[in-house]
Amino acid sequence: MSEILDLLATIGRLLRAENVLILCHKNPDGDTTGSAAALMHALKNLGKEAAVLCSDPIPSRYSYMQIEPFTGQFDPGYIVAVDVASIQLFGDSIQEYTEQIDLCIDHHASNGGYADAMLLDSSAAATCEIMYDVLTAMNVEITPVIANCLYTGLSTDTGCFLFSNTTAKAHMLAAKLMEAGAQVEDLNMILFESKSKGRMAIELTALQNLEYHFEDRCALMYMTREQIAESGVGPNELEDITSLPRKIEGVQVGITLRQLPGASYKISIRTTDGVDACAIAKRLGGGGHARAAGCELEGNLENAKAAILAEVERELKRAQELTKQEQE
Amino acid sequence: MSEILDLLATIGRLLRAENVLILCHKNPDGDTTGSAAALMHALKNLGKEAAVLCSDPIPSRYSYMQIEPFTGQFDPGYIVAVDVASIQLFGDSIQEYTEQIDLCIDHHASNGGYADAMLLDSSAAATCEIMYDVLTAMNVEITPVIANCLYTGLSTDTGCFLFSNTTAKAHMLAAKLMEAGAQVEDLNMILFESKSKGRMAIELTALQNLEYHFEDRCALMYMTREQIAESGVGPNELEDITSLPRKIEGVQVGITLRQLPGASYKISIRTTDGVDACAIAKRLGGGGHARAAGCELEGNLENAKAAILAEVERELKRAQELTKQEQE
Repeated sequence: MSEILDLLATIGRLLRAENVLILCHKNPDGDTTGSAAALMHALKNLGKEAAVLCSDPIPSRYSYMQIEPFTGQFDPGYIVAVDVASIQLFGDSIQEYTEQIDLCIDHHASNGGYADAMLLDSSAAATCEIMYDVLTAMNVEITPVIANCLYTGLSTDTGCFLFSNTTAKAHMLAAKLMEAGAQVEDLNMILFESKSKGRMAIELTALQNLEYHFEDRCALMYMTREQIAESGVGPNELEDITSLPRKIEGVQVGITLRQLPGASYKISIRTTDGVDACAIAKRLGGGGHARAAGCELEGNLENAKAAILAEVERELKRAQELTKQEQE
Repeated sequence: MSEILDLLATIGRLLRAENVLILCHKNPDGDTTGSAAALMHALKNLGKEAAVLCSDPIPSRYSYMQIEPFTGQFDPGYIVAVDVASIQLFGDSIQEYTEQIDLCIDHHASNGGYADAMLLDSSAAATCEIMYDVLTAMNVEITPVIANCLYTGLSTDTGCFLFSNTTAKAHMLAAKLMEAGAQVEDLNMILFESKSKGRMAIELTALQNLEYHFEDRCALMYMTREQIAESGVGPNELEDITSLPRKIEGVQVGITLRQLPGASYKISIRTTDGVDACAIAKRLGGGGHARAAGCELEGNLENAKAAILAEVERELKRAQELTKQEQE
């Protein structure tokens, strides 16, 4: 298990560190990339060597972060992981650097404690929120580039201040980052106002495959592997599409079936208050949270649909009876 | 023209006012409704009579604002319009109350100055932002209900902190409202995470009618009046659909054609930086802003498409040549 550090102990170690290698998680998102880039710029501005390593390429839309990739230009003296909840999330290709990690900075409550030391705040909306506190405690100036990096993690992890992890502190930090020069108008355009042609195509397909069940209390849509391949959409662009069916007025359970390359179906379950997504998933061998859960089912589309719909019906009945009891 | 008031003069008048009638604009949105409701609660908490009047019904999703509608329960002694840019926007059915308006509180730079006195701040992201300053200057406690009302206007007018009018002050206010008890998680669900079945249906139709032109630099989609009628979507739900085509990667001009009941086509033009939407609209008798403009064209779909595409091509060529010149 990791030694648990507070902010002061964390900055003590960072200020003593030299030749700092910063590690992101695989499939890098805005938060791991933004935290890593912000820390890199801060350390470089303090006159230290620092660079960022990720097992997958950093998406080109984050080019404004001006990340210096690690290509062996120095011998790492201190290794920091940012926003990486478990050692499996590093990806195999950078294994030679993940065997002894000095420090992990993270906001995932589930963090496995793989690093020697850890600064963890699971109440933070994003690791970038913690990173802002680290940098200001280190007395580093929040330059416009650093502000852009931190805003990226903060805004993407909160779905642009929409998700339930959005706190007053998150809004306050957004204000501070804007005052420090974050180009929020341009960033919002890049991060939230852009969809690929493939994504548009698969969204159309999914909507064409939209069905309503149980007096419209459940909406279900599906995408076969052929349809996904035809659209040309990338796997990273498919995650948030699962939120679509639950957004329909009156729908309490939104189901998305997505056929995987091996032909099985990955099923995402999204529910409104009072309907337990995790209970549905668990009965089919999956798991997750109360409002968002998932499972994987073998077999063809009809079988997968029949199996998930039977469990949805059971859960909707339970929820309805509970509401009835509460009203009595 | 209106007498221009500052904050202090405004609160002086409101504190002296009795039997206050608060007017919203027609097709009420989150900002006019939220500002009106917040002011109503504040005045009532000060022991005054106050009620809200709008020519259209207040949408039921705003029921948490606990608005007391004006039904003649008192003889109006002071009339305040909130978030209403021009006298035409009141709607005819409340005309007997709009002939002499004592005060207008607004953030629209285009405000016509129809009221006797006006508190206007066009730098505010929403009228609710100004209303917060008014209420705190009046020393009114920001109760959770008032915080909910103000958050509604702030978040809806900024597209949940996404649009370019989002300022550091807007984020700061969101933080303060959360601290005052705004139930942001529930509100975001109601305001941003809910689409009617009709809206889903027309979105599918529009995506089915999506075309790419000029090497994918223009995306165009259309909806006929039959398709709109079939979907059952309400007119208020059609506005933001026009932002879809411009969001596609690489698309510089997004065009939406929507057939009106009289058979003409309402055309919405959305562009990225460097391409002038207003120039396109103006050549077809319309107008608007640099990134969002519109016009109306008579005739059938093919004619309307041909006319708008010709102007899009012309503007794309102009923009391309300008870029080329700048690079030379």
